[in-house]
Amino acid sequence: MGGARHETIDRALAAIAPISGPAQASVLGRCERTDIAHAALVNGMSAHVLDFDDTHLRTLLHPSVPAASALLALAERQTMSGAEFLHAFVLGVEIECRIANAIYFAHNTDWYITGTAGVCGAAAAAGKALGLAEREFASAIGLACAQAAGMREMAGTMAKSFIHGRAAQNGLLAALLAQQGFTGAESALEGGHGFFKVMAQRSDLSRIVSGLGETFEIALNTYKPYACGVVAHPAIEACIRLREAHGVRPDDVERIELEVHPKALELAGIQSPPTGLKSKWSLYHSAAVALVDGAAGEHQYTDARVHDPVVARLRQRTQARTNPDYADVEARATCRLKDGRAVVQHVEKVIGSRERPMSDRDLDAKVAGLCAGILSPQKAIALIETCRALPALPDAAAIARAAVP
Amino acid sequence: MGGARHETIDRALAAIAPISGPAQASVLGRCERTDIAHAALVNGMSAHVLDFDDTHLRTLLHPSVPAASALLALAERQTMSGAEFLHAFVLGVEIECRIANAIYFAHNTDWYITGTAGVCGAAAAAGKALGLAEREFASAIGLACAQAAGMREMAGTMAKSFIHGRAAQNGLLAALLAQQGFTGAESALEGGHGFFKVMAQRSDLSRIVSGLGETFEIALNTYKPYACGVVAHPAIEACIRLREAHGVRPDDVERIELEVHPKALELAGIQSPPTGLKSKWSLYHSAAVALVDGAAGEHQYTDARVHDPVVARLRQRTQARTNPDYADVEARATCRLKDGRAVVQHVEKVIGSRERPMSDRDLDAKVAGLCAGILSPQKAIALIETCRALPALPDAAAIARAAVP
Repeated sequence: MGGARHETIDRALAAIAPISGPAQASVLGRCERTDIAHAALVNGMSAHVLDFDDTHLRTLLHPSVPAASALLALAERQTMSGAEFLHAFVLGVEIECRIANAIYFAHNTDWYITGTAGVCGAAAAAGKALGLAEREFASAIGLACAQAAGMREMAGTMAKSFIHGRAAQNGLLAALLAQQGFTGAESALEGGHGFFKVMAQRSDLSRIVSGLGETFEIALNTYKPYACGVVAHPAIEACIRLREAHGVRPDDVERIELEVHPKALELAGIQSPPTGLKSKWSLYHSAAVALVDGAAGEHQYTDARVHDPVVARLRQRTQARTNPDYADVEARATCRLKDGRAVVQHVEKVIGSRERPMSDRDLDAKVAGLCAGILSPQKAIALIETCRALPALPDAAAIARAAVP
Repeated sequence: MGGARHETIDRALAAIAPISGPAQASVLGRCERTDIAHAALVNGMSAHVLDFDDTHLRTLLHPSVPAASALLALAERQTMSGAEFLHAFVLGVEIECRIANAIYFAHNTDWYITGTAGVCGAAAAAGKALGLAEREFASAIGLACAQAAGMREMAGTMAKSFIHGRAAQNGLLAALLAQQGFTGAESALEGGHGFFKVMAQRSDLSRIVSGLGETFEIALNTYKPYACGVVAHPAIEACIRLREAHGVRPDDVERIELEVHPKALELAGIQSPPTGLKSKWSLYHSAAVALVDGAAGEHQYTDARVHDPVVARLRQRTQARTNPDYADVEARATCRLKDGRAVVQHVEKVIGSRERPMSDRDLDAKVAGLCAGILSPQKAIALIETCRALPALPDAAAIARAAVP
């Protein structure tokens, strides 16, 4: 919902409006309607553009972007019950996460795993909802693999959420093609010139089928409290605590020293981000806004916040170093004050991690915040209630209808 | 034109019809019209599905599929002269081939280079035609890179031509998005997590800019005499000559022995292809139909021809071995006859190679053959004349209009 008002979505809709098909499906959080394929694209982009979407922590895949965006669009063209929707969704998440599991330990991290494995999740979810037969289903996965794409060089540009939205759209298209007997390679995943060969140095295919139907990857899915890559979250919570516990204010600060897991600095090491989208990959910006605003939500990663002089000054006074002994959910923030004192906060297991998940109440508040300005408070509550009622809904498309102004 | 009647196109059109946009552009060789993005997709697929399209021999990229399919669709939405079309086309071909040159010597041959580098050619051609400014143009190339995809595991399935058609559609979409200020990474090609990093072990970026504007890659483009991968062509010509020079007939043959460049057997080594699409990657099938039919065109690679008992028997009696001293344009075919005689044909430089290109007359005959059954002979001649008049056409879309029944 919150991403729907981002300029990324405005520009995408401007480009696709002249080539779009019939008004079959809702663009969430907006008044436009478009064909189901473009709806999957745009809704997938909205879901990701704030870097605020759910994350399968083992692989850093964002499972709902492909699976839910493809399915929600399809649900507006063909009636499916909430239970059918959930079944297809869980299957899609299972398949994309298991494919990701098979390579992530040796994955070429130049790729966005949601752009590569995620498209298979969208194809599987849509394929299930379309009732594809076995051979068609295999073709759908093959056609998904044929579209697996998206390099990490796109970080901080609109192309990043485009890659994620395309995973939804391309997976849906793969299923629609397969439904018409269009063929993909049945060996697309494991073949000698296939998905696993090109995406990773090594792969472990047993991780796809081991425990299939017994353990569920969706149980490892997590929700983000902060609107940026998860690697920065422990440092953010530590800085918010500095402000809350010690009343630290920007003017008091001589310098912030962060101690983080190595991956945090590797992925979010931008010192002076030029734009809001790039600031999501800056530990320094994240720490600064956390201390200034006591928050790191949608509104802390805008161009305006990046260029705010107070934030910029604090960002420059923030240092970070890695600690290889830290867990990836751990960070320490030390604030050296102008009066000579130093205050410290250590986060062992960040909020939003599997060990310390957000509560239902946290989630409701997050959704309500993202809906603010788009839906009335009453309509936002109705949307939340519709989502929570999904298993019993006669028509899953009620969610899409509840998500438009 | 010939590819337009392939079942691959029927099935693709069936899948996309319900999600297609306004009838903005022609589907070549057919009566359907669709939005420009889907027209680029389907025309790109038609252009490639017979494996009969032009080839940049240095890289095995098929330059026209992305660049011409994207442009021809665009030409039906915005008027462009033939000269403008040609300028944008040559630029697109130049960019895709130069990007391919930079990696092909070390390219990961698990990818279809038209699916990876080709999408940049389509983006460049469309970007030029749209008059993109420098920054927009860079974003278009970035968005193209974000969609670079397509594994060789798809050989012999409909997904192969889908990958090629998507290069056209995705490059066009990249340019349309960039026109609206949608951003891609400016460092998409050379960045540390960018195109060259993921697509090849090594790259030589000097090959992109060296001689730019002075030497033209399109001058290295070639046209195919036979409807399959170029690696099989020398063996095909040798077998056609066996039939023509020695009057060899299938019933006389004890065994065919082929001697070929190593790449021919590596890429076209399928012994018993199950389908027409897979038979394009079988030296054995190619040799058999060449000897039985004296041809290797559109009609020699159908499911029916694959299952023809005379062809199948001869295919089983065909053997191939590699000769590392052979050039890739070279092959020898020895036919051992039942009466004990052996006849031999050695092809040093196959027809269609740069050293021995097809003549204009050959090309006219090829096009006329592909149009047969779709356009009347008079309309086929008119199409050829329109293409040859392109530099002086006031409206390049005349080609698309001349290419529909």
